[in-house]
Amino acid sequence: MTDTKTSLPEVRERIDSIDRQIQELISERANWAQEVAKVKGEGLSAIDYYRPEREAHVLRMVVDRNKGPLPDAEMVRLFREIMSSCLAQEDPLKIGYLGPEGTFSEQAVRKHFGHAAYGLPLGSIEEVFQEVAAGHADFGVVPVENSGQGMIQVTLDMFLTSDARICGEVELRVHQCLHSMAGKLENIKRVYAHAQSLQQCKTWLRMNLPGVECEAVSSNAEAARLARHADDVGAIAGETAGKVYGLKTLATGIEDRADNTTRFLVIGRSLFPPSGNDRTSLLITVNDKPGALYDVLSPFARHDVSLNRIESRPAHSGKWQYAFFIDVSGHINDEALQGAVKDIEQSVAQLRVLGSYPVALP
Amino acid sequence: MTDTKTSLPEVRERIDSIDRQIQELISERANWAQEVAKVKGEGLSAIDYYRPEREAHVLRMVVDRNKGPLPDAEMVRLFREIMSSCLAQEDPLKIGYLGPEGTFSEQAVRKHFGHAAYGLPLGSIEEVFQEVAAGHADFGVVPVENSGQGMIQVTLDMFLTSDARICGEVELRVHQCLHSMAGKLENIKRVYAHAQSLQQCKTWLRMNLPGVECEAVSSNAEAARLARHADDVGAIAGETAGKVYGLKTLATGIEDRADNTTRFLVIGRSLFPPSGNDRTSLLITVNDKPGALYDVLSPFARHDVSLNRIESRPAHSGKWQYAFFIDVSGHINDEALQGAVKDIEQSVAQLRVLGSYPVALP
Repeated sequence: MTDTKTSLPEVRERIDSIDRQIQELISERANWAQEVAKVKGEGLSAIDYYRPEREAHVLRMVVDRNKGPLPDAEMVRLFREIMSSCLAQEDPLKIGYLGPEGTFSEQAVRKHFGHAAYGLPLGSIEEVFQEVAAGHADFGVVPVENSGQGMIQVTLDMFLTSDARICGEVELRVHQCLHSMAGKLENIKRVYAHAQSLQQCKTWLRMNLPGVECEAVSSNAEAARLARHADDVGAIAGETAGKVYGLKTLATGIEDRADNTTRFLVIGRSLFPPSGNDRTSLLITVNDKPGALYDVLSPFARHDVSLNRIESRPAHSGKWQYAFFIDVSGHINDEALQGAVKDIEQSVAQLRVLGSYPVALP
Repeated sequence: MTDTKTSLPEVRERIDSIDRQIQELISERANWAQEVAKVKGEGLSAIDYYRPEREAHVLRMVVDRNKGPLPDAEMVRLFREIMSSCLAQEDPLKIGYLGPEGTFSEQAVRKHFGHAAYGLPLGSIEEVFQEVAAGHADFGVVPVENSGQGMIQVTLDMFLTSDARICGEVELRVHQCLHSMAGKLENIKRVYAHAQSLQQCKTWLRMNLPGVECEAVSSNAEAARLARHADDVGAIAGETAGKVYGLKTLATGIEDRADNTTRFLVIGRSLFPPSGNDRTSLLITVNDKPGALYDVLSPFARHDVSLNRIESRPAHSGKWQYAFFIDVSGHINDEALQGAVKDIEQSVAQLRVLGSYPVALP
């Protein structure tokens, strides 16, 4: 690329030649994907070829190589779609999620599996687990944590009674802003947003718009749309919504937790090999006695395993038992983690490996 | 590609090398897209670079070159996304459509503009026209025709009073099927579907399931979901829904019109140059007198211009005037079409070129 301007027809000719090469390579890639099918055997469907650890590895290489001008997330998105198309040459993957279409959960499905997979909108988180267990869905995507509101209990509790395995995680980041046609906060008489967003921005609203009426609407997009037709209405929505809807952005980062991320789990029926940068989720049930938690946690420290998260829930299995959901760095095949698990197993009622899976990509 | 099996690690190595090349080429393409920006001048946003005729041309070349194994539609989709990412390096395009998210209209937006554009779900077709006119949206996507139910009048009527230009068309094809857990039609006591799908399959339902109760639900996905929990319920939905939801497909192609396509128009504020395979939409207002329609149509035949569609509406402008919406093959810059238009203008009250735009891609 030089500083001298190239004429438009010349630039287009260059782009045409690049496209020709990209297309040839994508076709070649699709052929090799079929070759993988051959290696694995005939008559299988996408679920038999899908390897989350391999996909994560490929996408991490994409990030490592990326020198711009496209941002990492955009380049990763394009490769997700290319892989999604190549994989869907066999019967596409069927992904269950909490419907309806057009929600945050569907965004997570598309971010992780691309648009060539079949989406299967379901009525509840329970149903997602059931459909995966029954084999009607190959994988499921369920929300498990919102940085503002903590763990989503219904999802955690499903692991107490189901055999689901965790095969991946997806993170969606949203910075909430207050958008309005009004030029100043003082002019705002009412705030619209999705109920969850109102919840996420509670503190900011109480501090900055005390006494102002807050009303939950069907989505933040709907809130922004309503705000455009009034000069005393504010809408809580993501950063782009202000631009998209032509509203003034009066405040940014108004969520109670600065890093407002929703984390989803990909659930399936089996464990997968290491990808090189993994996380492991364990479900540990202990009897309620002094020192129980210490006995669980100390082996991790001893074996040099980093704890990422811990959440306790009353176990459904016994009256005086507690279940701990523990996320640690590394794959269950790692020596350090195996050592820790072996030690812990001696002191707890039950230890179940929910899954070892690639850490979420940007 | 040979018939001898290559080992999995070897195949993966080949794919890695292909990915490296694809990524380099995509980055180079993104750099050239910035070069286009330079050629056109500084400080502009995506709307200033977006050229529907150029995109259509690029995608047509993709189809022409495609030798598989990926189907044309899938390869086109990947190139749409690559172009969408490259274009979104400037302020992404803002596309208004009839919301909410997750509807057929949003699918049309994504099929035409890819996922790097901003979607702007709006409350009505009128609002889409207004937002485009006001410049809040760069383009709008509105349904204009369903092959089962004909033209969508509210969309046509908007052209009578608005200055919107047509910049593109998008077609979504759906074959409706009847899916059920029941093994036989005789066992079905109730049919669920979205109201529009029930409408589209009216004749088939009357002939094959007379007296069976039909109930409209929020979407066909919801219908399929409900059908899974009963053994006497049928759901109307697309072909994939049976597979996705694990239902038996009892009948396919049950829509009254075999070619069940919804056609959308892309509306904007300007006319674009020819792409090489274009359609032109004209709005012609005539006074109600004998031979009026003949005077409109005969010049097309004389100048060898093919008519694709014609629809008449009472014009809002005058009591005894009629408006004809006419689609013809070719671009308004074509000599033949210019000749026809010149002839027609002499006999009609008004002739407005609504737009010349690339014919819809697969």
